[in-house]
Amino acid sequence: MSGGLTVVGLGPGPAAWTTPAATAALAEATDLVGYGPYLDRLPDRPGQRRHASDNRVELERARHALALAAGGRQVAVVSGGDPGVFAMAAAVFEAVETGDPAWRGLDLRVEPGVTAMLAAAARVGAPLGHDFAALSLSDNLKPWEVIERRLRLAAEADLVLALYNPVSRARPQQLAQAFAVLGQIRDAGTPVVFARAVGRADERVTLATLAEVTDIAADMATMIIVGSSETRLVARAGGGAWVYTPRHYGGGR
Amino acid sequence: MSGGLTVVGLGPGPAAWTTPAATAALAEATDLVGYGPYLDRLPDRPGQRRHASDNRVELERARHALALAAGGRQVAVVSGGDPGVFAMAAAVFEAVETGDPAWRGLDLRVEPGVTAMLAAAARVGAPLGHDFAALSLSDNLKPWEVIERRLRLAAEADLVLALYNPVSRARPQQLAQAFAVLGQIRDAGTPVVFARAVGRADERVTLATLAEVTDIAADMATMIIVGSSETRLVARAGGGAWVYTPRHYGGGR
Repeated sequence: MSGGLTVVGLGPGPAAWTTPAATAALAEATDLVGYGPYLDRLPDRPGQRRHASDNRVELERARHALALAAGGRQVAVVSGGDPGVFAMAAAVFEAVETGDPAWRGLDLRVEPGVTAMLAAAARVGAPLGHDFAALSLSDNLKPWEVIERRLRLAAEADLVLALYNPVSRARPQQLAQAFAVLGQIRDAGTPVVFARAVGRADERVTLATLAEVTDIAADMATMIIVGSSETRLVARAGGGAWVYTPRHYGGGR
Repeated sequence: MSGGLTVVGLGPGPAAWTTPAATAALAEATDLVGYGPYLDRLPDRPGQRRHASDNRVELERARHALALAAGGRQVAVVSGGDPGVFAMAAAVFEAVETGDPAWRGLDLRVEPGVTAMLAAAARVGAPLGHDFAALSLSDNLKPWEVIERRLRLAAEADLVLALYNPVSRARPQQLAQAFAVLGQIRDAGTPVVFARAVGRADERVTLATLAEVTDIAADMATMIIVGSSETRLVARAGGGAWVYTPRHYGGGR
C-alpha cells in the first residue's frame, strides 16, 4: 500500500498564516478532502482531485479520505486552524480505530497549524500569557452538564478560558448560560475578548467585561477569551487597550 | 515616533513551521531582540542588528526592545513557538504597563505561531482533540500551591493537560509531585506523551501510561501531554500506537 494521508491545518484565515510545511503537504497531495470553504482557499493544481463536503460529516469525510489513501492515493485532509484542536485529526483517528484494519498500516501524519485562539489572542495582546483552558461549547458531541462542570472547575482554577464554537443556530442560548456560570465565580470586571474571523476581511474584535457580554453578538466564527483574575488591560495612547495575562501570579515578580 | 515593535513566534523548531507572516515581520525589522538560540535560527541580513540575551531576563529584554522602538527602530522580539503562550508577548505588555508612558503610543503587534503543544500533539495523533488545559509547571513566577490546585481542578474537570516547562535544574522534583497529584484523580492507565524537541534533530517522543511516568526522563525542552479519561490508543500495524481524544464525550456520537 503506497498511499498516505496527512491532516493539514491551514491556520485561521490568510495564506500568510499557513506554514510552509502545510503548503508543501498540500502540494504533494493527489487528493484534497475537506469542508468546501477550506478547499476554496487553496489554489487549483493540475491533476489534483478535490472532494468537498459540508462541515457536519467529519467521520464520514475521514473514512472517505482513508479509503482513498488505502487505494494508493496521497490524500491531504484539509482543516482550518490546527487540525488537532476541535478539528479533523481526531475524526481521522476515530475512523482508523473503528474502520478497516488495513488503515492501521497507512502512512498517517498530522501537520500542525496556528489555531484560532492564538490568532485571536495576538490581535489584542497576550491574554493567553499564562495558564489557560480551551473548551468547546458545542453540545453536539457532549452533554451540556459536562460543559458546565468544566467551565465551573476551570473558572475555580482561575484559568484563562478560550471558548471555541460558542454558539450556533441550534443552541443560541448556551453562550448566555456559559457566561452565567462564569459570572458566579469570576469578577464582573473580568476582561472578555470577542474575536470574529481574525485575519479575514470581515474581522471584528471587541473588548468587553464579563458584566457587558450579553450585549455582544457572537457566532460560530467567533473565538471568545475570558480573562483570569490576573488578566489586565493596558490603555493605548490612541484609545482602546491591550489585554494581557502576566507571566507571574499573585503579584510575585 | 515612527518605530514599531512586533513580537514574532518562530514555531517549535524548523523553518517549515514558521509562518510566512512571521518571516515577513523578521525581514522588515531593523533590530532583532531575543534569546540567543532563537536568533541563531535566523539568516543574517545585511544592516540588521541583533541583540541576544539569555532566557532569564524577559522583562529586561522587553524594555530594551521597547526603548529601541521608541527611538525609531523597527524591532522584532523573537520568541519560540507562539509568542503569546508562556513566551515573550506577556513580558512586552507588562513592560509597557509599568514603563515609559510614551511606549503606549507605539505600533505594537503580535505575530502568532505554532505553539509547542500543537507540534507535540501532531506527532502522536490528536491528543488535544477535545477540551484541554495548558499549564506551566514553572514556579519561578507563581507559588507551587497554585500549580497544584490548578492541576487538581483541571484533572477533576477531565481536561487533557499540556504541561509546559515541566522541569528545571532548580526544581527537579516538581514533575514527580505533579504526577502524584494527577495520579490521585486519573486512572493509572491514562496515556501520557513525552515529546522532546519536536521538529529538531534530537526529537524524541515517548508514549507511556500514568503508572510508568516516573521512569521517563524529561527536561525543559520536553512537552508533556496527559490524557483525559477518554483519551485512547490506536495500535499501528507496524507497532506503536497513535493517541487521540475523541471529539465526543461519554460515548455519545
